[in-house]
Amino acid sequence: MTNDGTTTTRIEHDCIGSMEVPTDVYWGIHTQRAIGNFPVSGITDAQHPELVRAYATVKRACAAANEELGLLDPEKSRLIRKACEEIEGGKLADQFPVDVMQGGAGTSSNMNMNEVIANRALELAGRPRGDYEYIHPNDDVNHSQSTNDTYPAACKLALIDAIGPLAQSAKRLAKAFHDLADRHIEDVTIGRTQLQDAVPMTYGQEFHAFATLLKSDLNAFDHVVPQLAVLNLGATAIGTGICADLRFRESAIDHLRRITGLPITAASDPVAAMTDMGAYVATSAAIKNLAVHLKKAADDLRLLNSGPRAGFNDLTVPARQAGSSIMPAKVNPVIPECVNQCCFTIFGMDVTVNWAVAEGQLQLNAFDPLMVHELLTGMSLLTRAMDVFRTNCVEGIEVHVETGRKYAESSPSISAALNPYIGYEHAADIAKEATASGRTVREVAGERTALPAEQLDEILDPIRLARGLGQTCRERVK
Amino acid sequence: MTNDGTTTTRIEHDCIGSMEVPTDVYWGIHTQRAIGNFPVSGITDAQHPELVRAYATVKRACAAANEELGLLDPEKSRLIRKACEEIEGGKLADQFPVDVMQGGAGTSSNMNMNEVIANRALELAGRPRGDYEYIHPNDDVNHSQSTNDTYPAACKLALIDAIGPLAQSAKRLAKAFHDLADRHIEDVTIGRTQLQDAVPMTYGQEFHAFATLLKSDLNAFDHVVPQLAVLNLGATAIGTGICADLRFRESAIDHLRRITGLPITAASDPVAAMTDMGAYVATSAAIKNLAVHLKKAADDLRLLNSGPRAGFNDLTVPARQAGSSIMPAKVNPVIPECVNQCCFTIFGMDVTVNWAVAEGQLQLNAFDPLMVHELLTGMSLLTRAMDVFRTNCVEGIEVHVETGRKYAESSPSISAALNPYIGYEHAADIAKEATASGRTVREVAGERTALPAEQLDEILDPIRLARGLGQTCRERVK
Amino acid sequence: MTNDGTTTTRIEHDCIGSMEVPTDVYWGIHTQRAIGNFPVSGITDAQHPELVRAYATVKRACAAANEELGLLDPEKSRLIRKACEEIEGGKLADQFPVDVMQGGAGTSSNMNMNEVIANRALELAGRPRGDYEYIHPNDDVNHSQSTNDTYPAACKLALIDAIGPLAQSAKRLAKAFHDLADRHIEDVTIGRTQLQDAVPMTYGQEFHAFATLLKSDLNAFDHVVPQLAVLNLGATAIGTGICADLRFRESAIDHLRRITGLPITAASDPVAAMTDMGAYVATSAAIKNLAVHLKKAADDLRLLNSGPRAGFNDLTVPARQAGSSIMPAKVNPVIPECVNQCCFTIFGMDVTVNWAVAEGQLQLNAFDPLMVHELLTGMSLLTRAMDVFRTNCVEGIEVHVETGRKYAESSPSISAALNPYIGYEHAADIAKEATASGRTVREVAGERTALPAEQLDEILDPIRLARGLGQTCRERVK
Amino acid sequence: MTNDGTTTTRIEHDCIGSMEVPTDVYWGIHTQRAIGNFPVSGITDAQHPELVRAYATVKRACAAANEELGLLDPEKSRLIRKACEEIEGGKLADQFPVDVMQGGAGTSSNMNMNEVIANRALELAGRPRGDYEYIHPNDDVNHSQSTNDTYPAACKLALIDAIGPLAQSAKRLAKAFHDLADRHIEDVTIGRTQLQDAVPMTYGQEFHAFATLLKSDLNAFDHVVPQLAVLNLGATAIGTGICADLRFRESAIDHLRRITGLPITAASDPVAAMTDMGAYVATSAAIKNLAVHLKKAADDLRLLNSGPRAGFNDLTVPARQAGSSIMPAKVNPVIPECVNQCCFTIFGMDVTVNWAVAEGQLQLNAFDPLMVHELLTGMSLLTRAMDVFRTNCVEGIEVHVETGRKYAESSPSISAALNPYIGYEHAADIAKEATASGRTVREVAGERTALPAEQLDEILDPIRLARGLGQTCRERVK
Repeated sequence: MTNDGTTTTRIEHDCIGSMEVPTDVYWGIHTQRAIGNFPVSGITDAQHPELVRAYATVKRACAAANEELGLLDPEKSRLIRKACEEIEGGKLADQFPVDVMQGGAGTSSNMNMNEVIANRALELAGRPRGDYEYIHPNDDVNHSQSTNDTYPAACKLALIDAIGPLAQSAKRLAKAFHDLADRHIEDVTIGRTQLQDAVPMTYGQEFHAFATLLKSDLNAFDHVVPQLAVLNLGATAIGTGICADLRFRESAIDHLRRITGLPITAASDPVAAMTDMGAYVATSAAIKNLAVHLKKAADDLRLLNSGPRAGFNDLTVPARQAGSSIMPAKVNPVIPECVNQCCFTIFGMDVTVNWAVAEGQLQLNAFDPLMVHELLTGMSLLTRAMDVFRTNCVEGIEVHVETGRKYAESSPSISAALNPYIGYEHAADIAKEATASGRTVREVAGERTALPAEQLDEILDPIRLARGLGQTCRERVK
Repeated sequence: MTNDGTTTTRIEHDCIGSMEVPTDVYWGIHTQRAIGNFPVSGITDAQHPELVRAYATVKRACAAANEELGLLDPEKSRLIRKACEEIEGGKLADQFPVDVMQGGAGTSSNMNMNEVIANRALELAGRPRGDYEYIHPNDDVNHSQSTNDTYPAACKLALIDAIGPLAQSAKRLAKAFHDLADRHIEDVTIGRTQLQDAVPMTYGQEFHAFATLLKSDLNAFDHVVPQLAVLNLGATAIGTGICADLRFRESAIDHLRRITGLPITAASDPVAAMTDMGAYVATSAAIKNLAVHLKKAADDLRLLNSGPRAGFNDLTVPARQAGSSIMPAKVNPVIPECVNQCCFTIFGMDVTVNWAVAEGQLQLNAFDPLMVHELLTGMSLLTRAMDVFRTNCVEGIEVHVETGRKYAESSPSISAALNPYIGYEHAADIAKEATASGRTVREVAGERTALPAEQLDEILDPIRLARGLGQTCRERVK
Repeated sequence: MTNDGTTTTRIEHDCIGSMEVPTDVYWGIHTQRAIGNFPVSGITDAQHPELVRAYATVKRACAAANEELGLLDPEKSRLIRKACEEIEGGKLADQFPVDVMQGGAGTSSNMNMNEVIANRALELAGRPRGDYEYIHPNDDVNHSQSTNDTYPAACKLALIDAIGPLAQSAKRLAKAFHDLADRHIEDVTIGRTQLQDAVPMTYGQEFHAFATLLKSDLNAFDHVVPQLAVLNLGATAIGTGICADLRFRESAIDHLRRITGLPITAASDPVAAMTDMGAYVATSAAIKNLAVHLKKAADDLRLLNSGPRAGFNDLTVPARQAGSSIMPAKVNPVIPECVNQCCFTIFGMDVTVNWAVAEGQLQLNAFDPLMVHELLTGMSLLTRAMDVFRTNCVEGIEVHVETGRKYAESSPSISAALNPYIGYEHAADIAKEATASGRTVREVAGERTALPAEQLDEILDPIRLARGLGQTCRERVK
Repeated sequence: MTNDGTTTTRIEHDCIGSMEVPTDVYWGIHTQRAIGNFPVSGITDAQHPELVRAYATVKRACAAANEELGLLDPEKSRLIRKACEEIEGGKLADQFPVDVMQGGAGTSSNMNMNEVIANRALELAGRPRGDYEYIHPNDDVNHSQSTNDTYPAACKLALIDAIGPLAQSAKRLAKAFHDLADRHIEDVTIGRTQLQDAVPMTYGQEFHAFATLLKSDLNAFDHVVPQLAVLNLGATAIGTGICADLRFRESAIDHLRRITGLPITAASDPVAAMTDMGAYVATSAAIKNLAVHLKKAADDLRLLNSGPRAGFNDLTVPARQAGSSIMPAKVNPVIPECVNQCCFTIFGMDVTVNWAVAEGQLQLNAFDPLMVHELLTGMSLLTRAMDVFRTNCVEGIEVHVETGRKYAESSPSISAALNPYIGYEHAADIAKEATASGRTVREVAGERTALPAEQLDEILDPIRLARGLGQTCRERVK
């Protein structure tokens, strides 16, 4: 069990039997078995550093609680907590080799964490790896705990952690849309509904709206955090808290709240909480709605960029690369297309999460490894997609303000502005004649209504029509 | 345009041309065209009475606002509001024949409502149908409005309306689970994780948890209401408020808030709000999570009901019908199976809604007719499914308490209770011997540990083990 | 049990107990229980006439097989078969009141069919309803059968039946696209890739392609039929054929093949076939791919119809209704929008079907009622959507041929045609200059290449460029 | 542009401008731009070696066709083809750094391949990288080609390639199920429908059925190959074949057919084929159905493994690791759970693919990079999941044959075997009494029927009942 220098493995045992583990790794037999058990996705826990860090934080809080309740020797607790802090700080990041799609409801990830912490704590104590008599992965590191209460806790904290960079990217992207909007706050164009020319608006309003949608997502994530912060520590195997001192729940959650600064609370019904995946459903929905908004922006920019001669041609997205291997000088909106694909991936993610959350049985849902993997992957994908969208596209958009103005003036639907003066039906006649003759509504109305020219000019002034309620919506995302 | 008794149709016209409309209907040409345009699902707006009522409420508030702002003659307003109130009260329920999957972003539903209100108002005024010179569907009933601002408002109020019965059914079902739990609050059984025997719990805890899950859904719907109550009245066609007095927005929302008693607010960015489908995404997610919880209860009951000889046999669901056309006396869990299917339908609904919300273009998403149809249908389906679940299944469940007790005592995993006394590894040896020999953990532990018999009895007492944290979770759904 | 005229019910009994059944209905106690058990969707088997007819056909074949094998009295068989034929012909269509989302794997539908056939056969024999001593729903009508083998057989035949009208609608729609294509076979326009102007094509090629896509769907459905025609008759409860003469399987399938004219075969592994839902997955995928194609046509037409001033304006879809309650004379592409929504519904259907097919357990999947309901509903929806698409939209499309020609000539990407003569990089310079200066590639190439004018005219002739391979694709859907 | 030893980059240019490219890479400016444009998923084309190899094969066939038609100098063709062969053989595998979720419809992947081939060909010719005057990525390597015709061709060949290992894994897993079945071909147990005890079958039948389901998947993939083998080479940008000699299509497809040995054909309508994603939909459906079957096996094994005391306990899956960090000696079915999660991932994949296939616009669907990435990832995941399932689970299953026998004898539903002798209703009475009294049907029937004991023994003999039709289904997957 010790490393004598002549062998490169040590022997560990568990309830199945014994097994060789490489001498130089911090993990133990449980992790070693898991490596062999689950070679499916090729992606490991180590590739979700938020999860590794969060699990170490959970373990640290539990050690502190165990110490406080007299369940763990203070010196052992100190060593364990020190090991946790190192992992939280990014050390030992290569010691988490279990496949993210592991079976077992996270038991392998938990034991991996218990083993690495135990062996690093042993090392800090000047003892050899595997000297579990002194510090035991289960009896000490995992004391008062189960996979079923700590793994979901780590998953939820990891998701909260991942919201941070996601929100930062969303804010930066919103700011880019605001900046673009500010540059075009008075530049009119035509609003289009059902892809038909409708009534005037400004490009500023159009881009500002993309930022507003992102703002609503930021609010949504703010509401998801308290749901994710409802934890079930101390519930152990099935929610009854077997093996755990009943005071442990409160103590562990207090410590975790203090360490993280998050509004962590204990679930009110620990048995129900063991199988309630509602927080994952809510997180997935928030991510999905963000993807819906990004898709909208990407789709709209692709439409507005269509042309240059046979499309909308409202604007030009930056040329990022030659668009075609055959059509010379063609430039395509490749960044919005990339964003689109990220969004489609999220829509599938939501369905995968739905499957995982809805397939729990009796006192446990064994599929949270998949849930957290999908959600972390999705959040990370959108984080990067928003950065790419902003730097490689939005910040370089050129608006064709003259085209917009021409569109605004020529739309037949602008005759709606005449409704209050001459009624819907008469206004419709004017619109139809404008369409048929290729003239503007202003021109036809000059002939076909008794309204004086100045009044018509004012009634049909695109910028006046665009302002309207639009003036009220200038609040920026902070 | 009048009904002279010799013909059964009247002629109406619009910007496309003229058309015959049956004399005896309240709708007009726009509705008549829509009937011919969209014969796809065979389901009409009339089959969503919440939507019809909500739209009439919106129209009533708008008429009041128009009157208040001097934009609508008080007498006309009175007639219009009277017609609305009748529709809200369930009259003219057969006058809404447009297919729910109509194209046009709800324009046909809006015009149908405008026409029915106009013609009923005309009738109240003693005037013939179609006498739109006096009260015009567009210029009067639709004054200051567009489909694009009023239809989503009606949809969202309809969804809030539908939450009512859904929540009532959820509460009643939760109560049934509570009642069942109360009858078995001290009856121990085995908790199972990953379908393996784990540690003791009570049937009371198990059923109580189903109610807790439903309670979380009630909370979720409470949070959805304020999102659904953000409306965009006065934004008209694209959010700029063209054709609407800028004071109309506040006035209409005030009236609507007063009429409905709901916390209705105006969207802060009317252009963004025109295309933000976030409230539908959130509603769909809440419905989906409810379905996840119902599926869990249905799945678990089917598992617990498995047998009678070769299954879990923890309980018997009521025999609702002969289970087989060939196997005599076989009784199947047909009600949970029916509930399962309703849940699968909801999972598809969520995907359909995702498609509809994510396919908006530029200043409008034209697909809210589908969204509201799917969501109302889904809510109605789950409402009925919960009633059927409760009355045809949950209320009649018989728990086999002796079986549960036997399971609790025989589980090898109960040795977890020995961990704090003898350590995980020694406890594992005892569990393994119990499994191999077919004896109980208590029996083996009596031989293989130094713990006195009374202490072992206490440590391994299933009801003591079951209580634990479980004691804290007795709060009932109100 | 008889109808004495003074009471309106008769008493029937089953293994659960006894129950009153209305005197005048053909169904019996099993159906009566089911009515009370499953009031969830409000949609009944009667609303899927293909299913009712197909089930009667299956029962008829089984009666013939039973008679042939000496298991059923010839006179009883005659009466049963006569009753089946009546139901296949559309009689007694109101006698199938069980909710389509029933639990029980179709047992209620099977017993409903058994009871109606038995009672109609009794009536044909001059005997009272409920006189099951003479003809028994289980022992006679259901002889050698189980729900688990006959219900899926009926479902699959019903799906084959529904392919008929679906394919007819698809063919008619394909023809409409062909006709439109034929009218514009020489009218050039610009092909657009990634919404950017690409190289010339004809409107004929564009519309012909929509028909080609539909043709691929017809082929796909042709391939689905043999999968749906693999039946499991004689497998009874779990595939072992308990209670059935082992010769029954072949005989029943022979009779069914003869009656239907379909290439029906027996599944090679009856135990596996009992839970294999692969034919439903394949059917759902074929329906989904059809929806993908319809969505494409609808989306493209909405894009090509965009404008009239600030859009593509390649064509005008027929004005079916006034497009807006506020914007006078605005006409929207409401039919394609309606088609889009039908497609979104199908995409959700596919997910619901996925859930149902993937949730079978052990020897049965209990969720085929949902599968067949979803698939039949989806097929019927697309059938009607295609008819609406054709008659209300495609047949009336007006192409703006002058606009198309202008687009074709002005596209910078047309410089691709110069690649073989001057190389990609030089061609790119010309395209860039054309874009920057607003001139055509032809104009710039005249100055910047040494190619003679006539050769340039020929190289850059849009119709020549459009023809190319396009000439080879004129095969029409038959 | 050359490497003079003092600088580590070379300068290349395109229609956007010029850029530095590392001297030592084979790619050029187009690839370099793409690296910066799409840092979203962190996964590169290099991680899909099937795609890289297939694209090189396509390029080789095109070079051969160009040479054959006199469009490419034989020596250049030789060099290009040599470079392709090297890449097909696995060389230069690290030269494909473009993100798999790139925008641009695959243009970056195409240009990456064109550049690597060109530079390797130049190297083979003893010329410096970037010496495109001699061999040009576009004018030579990409001659007669476009991304829009070659990228989908490479994607489809890559998918065909990936079917190989998938099918091998499926066959090996099927064999493992067959072997397990063979060991238990005469061991009876109870078949369960709707989780209720039904009628006898053998474990052999049960496991054989899993293999049969896999066999149906192998057939399905066989049918997908010809769909994937319909290619659109020579169609270039939009299907009209601009820039390509019209003979190129046939020649390129001939060469590709010869090189690959696959039944490759040309699409009959090149314009339609450019946007028809039907082959991807069919591939996705086939993968999904395989996942449905794997999920079924995993779910069933988890059920049959439930216990050991309070579950079905029909069998024991191999203990792969300690099941719990808290419950000693608990062993969980972690491998089937892992398989389940892989299946859920596939169900999400199918939805993502649906989004990508249904969002094409006009003459192109720009989202095939996502489609092929999702499909290849899904196939690879299931390939590994099947290997893990087999080696870590199925091969080590231990069946509890005594338990099965006991179940078979005790099931009340076995009374179905009495139907032909005493009728369904009398048989039901016997089943009910057996259930109520805890006796076997055989025991009760001995008292309650007039059938002689020997006949009853035979009628109710489980193995006789199990055999039935089951005897016919012994065909093994080859």
